[in-house]
Amino acid sequence: MLPIAVDAMGGDNAPGAIVEGARRAADELGIPIVLVGRPDETDPLRGDLDLLAASEVIGMDADAGASVRRMKDSSLVRAAEAVRDGRASAMVSAGNTGATMASALLRMGRIKGVARPAIATPIPVVGSTPTVLLDAGANAECQAAWLVQFAQMGAVFARHRYGIAEPRVGLLSIGEESTKGNDLVKETHALLAEPGALAGSGARFVGNVEGRDIMTPDVDVIVTDGFTGNVTLKTLEGGMKALVRAVLETLGASDVGDRAVEALLPLYAELDPDSTGGAMLLGVDGVCIISHGSSSATAVVNAARVAREMVEGEVVERLREAIAAG
Amino acid sequence: MLPIAVDAMGGDNAPGAIVEGARRAADELGIPIVLVGRPDETDPLRGDLDLLAASEVIGMDADAGASVRRMKDSSLVRAAEAVRDGRASAMVSAGNTGATMASALLRMGRIKGVARPAIATPIPVVGSTPTVLLDAGANAECQAAWLVQFAQMGAVFARHRYGIAEPRVGLLSIGEESTKGNDLVKETHALLAEPGALAGSGARFVGNVEGRDIMTPDVDVIVTDGFTGNVTLKTLEGGMKALVRAVLETLGASDVGDRAVEALLPLYAELDPDSTGGAMLLGVDGVCIISHGSSSATAVVNAARVAREMVEGEVVERLREAIAAG
Repeated sequence: MLPIAVDAMGGDNAPGAIVEGARRAADELGIPIVLVGRPDETDPLRGDLDLLAASEVIGMDADAGASVRRMKDSSLVRAAEAVRDGRASAMVSAGNTGATMASALLRMGRIKGVARPAIATPIPVVGSTPTVLLDAGANAECQAAWLVQFAQMGAVFARHRYGIAEPRVGLLSIGEESTKGNDLVKETHALLAEPGALAGSGARFVGNVEGRDIMTPDVDVIVTDGFTGNVTLKTLEGGMKALVRAVLETLGASDVGDRAVEALLPLYAELDPDSTGGAMLLGVDGVCIISHGSSSATAVVNAARVAREMVEGEVVERLREAIAAG
Repeated sequence: MLPIAVDAMGGDNAPGAIVEGARRAADELGIPIVLVGRPDETDPLRGDLDLLAASEVIGMDADAGASVRRMKDSSLVRAAEAVRDGRASAMVSAGNTGATMASALLRMGRIKGVARPAIATPIPVVGSTPTVLLDAGANAECQAAWLVQFAQMGAVFARHRYGIAEPRVGLLSIGEESTKGNDLVKETHALLAEPGALAGSGARFVGNVEGRDIMTPDVDVIVTDGFTGNVTLKTLEGGMKALVRAVLETLGASDVGDRAVEALLPLYAELDPDSTGGAMLLGVDGVCIISHGSSSATAVVNAARVAREMVEGEVVERLREAIAAG
């Protein structure tokens, strides 16, 4: 297998935690890795990992489109080129999400027939497989036909990532009835309800779902526009964080303090975004894994593991077939 | 003060919990109450509370518009009429939300100049005043000018409900920069950023906020369209519920079980929707408090308390002034 290109410069904890995670992925899981980034910053850290030199770094808050066009020797652009040129099998970055998307889109191109790529983010569900939410932020304005493709691609992802034979796909709305929602949702509902709409991806449309269904085992893939999806994702992250902090503070101040907090550690790990292995940009012609900005070394290990699974499972080929059949 | 009309027939636990809550509001808080509903079902429960007889009940899942037009002797329509006719100072219902809105809108009418009423829902923030989210579901499709009015009305509500002198108003988006978001958000941002946009409501526009800011003390009012707002609200409800259940199950199975759960009870109560006193429909010409469908007697007590506060604070007058000044 070709190596996985890991953007050593992207993320709040780069390059330290990123390079450490890449080394652990290589050492502990035997995943072939090529780092992409500045030699002077990575040489002291990388041990015997290969390096693809890139002199520029796109900042976490930089304008995505302009940066990718201008910074042709950036680690993100070089990582995407490595996939395009057949020198890497996948790219992983915890850097600027918009720039990661733009690099992948401009260098790898789209899968034939895909209108717009979408970010598929797994949301942890206690005691079950995660719910795949897409689009989690690639497209703030969407058309109904794009959402149908998101459903097809999300189903292929859920099947390969979580081994779900016939993923249940729900459309995010504000009521279960097909008449509920905004104009985009009503139009999308009608398209998804047509017989065979998801036949090519082996999925089943279960109708509208609501925000309260996301963290339940009742649905496998939830489709929405990138604005609503991103708001939803960040709302959940913020809500979970606020509640977890309040629970830990309350327990910490009680007479059962440490033992109660200790009892909760496995649950905490189950819900930790570092455990999910990151989001995947679906629809570009290559594997592109997007880790969150605050990724730890463990998050990078998991992202590399998911990247290998997606490469070995030939998910891009499966997406191509689903889009061609849709 | 004129009595508060409580819809005895609305809600999953009606009429039992609703009437019990109404009685407690009268007995414990001295709030004047008139129940609205079927005599045969409420007479055995209501003690010495007054009753305004209404023979029909709009079901929780009934079509809102059609029901309100057809069922003129329903408890919801009669409650709204009582406010319009000066026989009640406010209405409270835990029934069908759409039908509650439609009854209030059709019977009370809109405040002059208001384009669309909006649902303002308080989201609990641990250790701080709640964040007021609106529109939480009244208008699935919105225009930018309506969102500006939601900001004005939400600020008046936050000032009176929580005593916040100069509420900080944020616009829900997917990035802090004014260029981030969908078309509606970008257009609304430009309008809210104009000097004086919120002068009439004594509020301050703090720019775009993200989902992760909702449960923090950093913002007082968050404005969004009714589709995004409703998805956000239900996402938080579902996420909190899933996490609370997982925490309680995990602790329950641990060796510190009962004592840890007991330590968490005050936090649980702080986050319980029954404690918030319900949402308010802003923009209609009268006070209309919307309790959630699963309201307990305690939720009704709190809703009646909030209704009284809104009546005594003359919030409808303050909304009228803010809209006229806006």
